[in-house]
Amino acid sequence: MKDSINVKWTDGMSFETEIDGYKISVDAKEEFGGQGKGPRPKPLMMMALAGCTGMDVVSILNKMRVNFDDFNVIVDAELTDEHPKHYRKMHLIYKFKGENLPLDKIEKAITLSQENYCGVSASYKKAMEITYEIKIN
Amino acid sequence: MKDSINVKWTDGMSFETEIDGYKISVDAKEEFGGQGKGPRPKPLMMMALAGCTGMDVVSILNKMRVNFDDFNVIVDAELTDEHPKHYRKMHLIYKFKGENLPLDKIEKAITLSQENYCGVSASYKKAMEITYEIKIN
Repeated sequence: MKDSINVKWTDGMSFETEIDGYKISVDAKEEFGGQGKGPRPKPLMMMALAGCTGMDVVSILNKMRVNFDDFNVIVDAELTDEHPKHYRKMHLIYKFKGENLPLDKIEKAITLSQENYCGVSASYKKAMEITYEIKIN
Repeated sequence: MKDSINVKWTDGMSFETEIDGYKISVDAKEEFGGQGKGPRPKPLMMMALAGCTGMDVVSILNKMRVNFDDFNVIVDAELTDEHPKHYRKMHLIYKFKGENLPLDKIEKAITLSQENYCGVSASYKKAMEITYEIKIN
């Protein structure tokens, strides 16, 4: 199986592509010639991880018939001091709001995602430390 | 140095966040409960890499006073057969259009990005094979 994208330089430091029919742009910070046309590319790595594991967890909790009102995945990423600066650690906070939420099932869903389902986590684990915690209400 | 994002579950399988003030959404494929609200999260990994190295190359070529008309970065990524399916290889095609483009300077710019500047590449190299080629005109 393969994935493929064609990323086009637009002007200045900005690039755009289409993924699954959706346009995504990136741009540099203003101090590096950016013109405010999109986010920086590196933090997209955090969204790839949060989206991937978040969808797993929603899908597993749906199957377990666990209902929640709100669910956020916060990603705190630490960069190396040395160049090229890259993420040396990502810490995930899985944050739920809802009534009578079952911690054991939520823990199970997250463990399944981190150990068996999430392909982004599987890649990142080879490159950096991945840790997580759960917060309910 | 740290980067941080807060990724909110919206509904179904979709999540959104803000990076540098820009809203980014992700959603699952329809067959996995997606409702067409954004791209899948995993391919964002390809855009992070293309944007990161693309900006390096533009910046270095600007300093070398190399002008080009068009510049694309194509990313072909191969997924593992085993679960969780994750990228085992990304191949980049740096594609330029322009008059009298100096291959040696373009090669130098790309090598500098891949070896010294691009933090996304630095991470991914620990997790998968990264290869590239250059196409001019």
